[in-house]
Amino acid sequence: MVMNIVLVEPEIPQNTGNIARTCAVTNSSLYLVKPLGFSTEDKYLKRAGLDYWDKVDVYYYDSIFDLIADYNDSSFYFASTKAPQSYDQVIYKNNDFLVFGKETAGLPESLLKKYLDYTIRIPMGNELRSLNLANSVAIILYEGLRQLNFPSLVNNGLLRNN
Amino acid sequence: MVMNIVLVEPEIPQNTGNIARTCAVTNSSLYLVKPLGFSTEDKYLKRAGLDYWDKVDVYYYDSIFDLIADYNDSSFYFASTKAPQSYDQVIYKNNDFLVFGKETAGLPESLLKKYLDYTIRIPMGNELRSLNLANSVAIILYEGLRQLNFPSLVNNGLLRNN
Repeated sequence: MVMNIVLVEPEIPQNTGNIARTCAVTNSSLYLVKPLGFSTEDKYLKRAGLDYWDKVDVYYYDSIFDLIADYNDSSFYFASTKAPQSYDQVIYKNNDFLVFGKETAGLPESLLKKYLDYTIRIPMGNELRSLNLANSVAIILYEGLRQLNFPSLVNNGLLRNN
Repeated sequence: MVMNIVLVEPEIPQNTGNIARTCAVTNSSLYLVKPLGFSTEDKYLKRAGLDYWDKVDVYYYDSIFDLIADYNDSSFYFASTKAPQSYDQVIYKNNDFLVFGKETAGLPESLLKKYLDYTIRIPMGNELRSLNLANSVAIILYEGLRQLNFPSLVNNGLLRNN
């Protein structure tokens, strides 16, 4: 396992399904912190995750703090539009955890302040607009994988000019 | 305008709505090459793009070759799971165009072979799984913006530790 994605109280099933697909494609684990805004049997979740849902290692936690305690050898980074540091200024390592909050409200400000040095932000056009959650996950995850030179991912193409 | 996104014959309205939102957030222009698999009045398109759809410069073309001819001073990069070159090996410039094919089939192989040196691929776990189109756009677009140091995007956070 190279990178880990954590969704804290996700609300929209299509986003979680979409993120499960991204995890399947990148061999990343997915951690879901309850309560979830949907059932994991939700048809929109399944549809967005296509046939990927069953190919992802999904773990459930009742508290983000329990998860952090279980992996205290790993670094946790917390995505927020309000973070001082841009996501590309971090040097990512194997087994890092990337933590994302709920769609409508993001991560709790108390959590962000507690781990301020580990908060990361995606630069955006202005504060009134923000990226979709699944896209935010994809952008930060692929920056980590890029820095690690895409370990265990297929790194040669098939197209030939003949 | 910093970067331009081109969707050739997109099929799924939610994806195009989602990509329009990413374009709005990054001040990117969106070019749609017909035929589209949906009406631009589609409720799923509007919902996925939230209130972002009207904030994006959207241009319509009947042919990708007309678009390339109109901007022959710019570089066009063509995303394909079969491309020999990874997306992070390119040095992006202002006004580059990032071109993506339809969800079910990607870009036509004839087009990819014609522009082989400009094809780019996102490394993935294996050939049977692939990223969602909107996520692919977000990953490559943000690699370009990262290289350009996020021009005209808000690059400081608001969270303070007090």
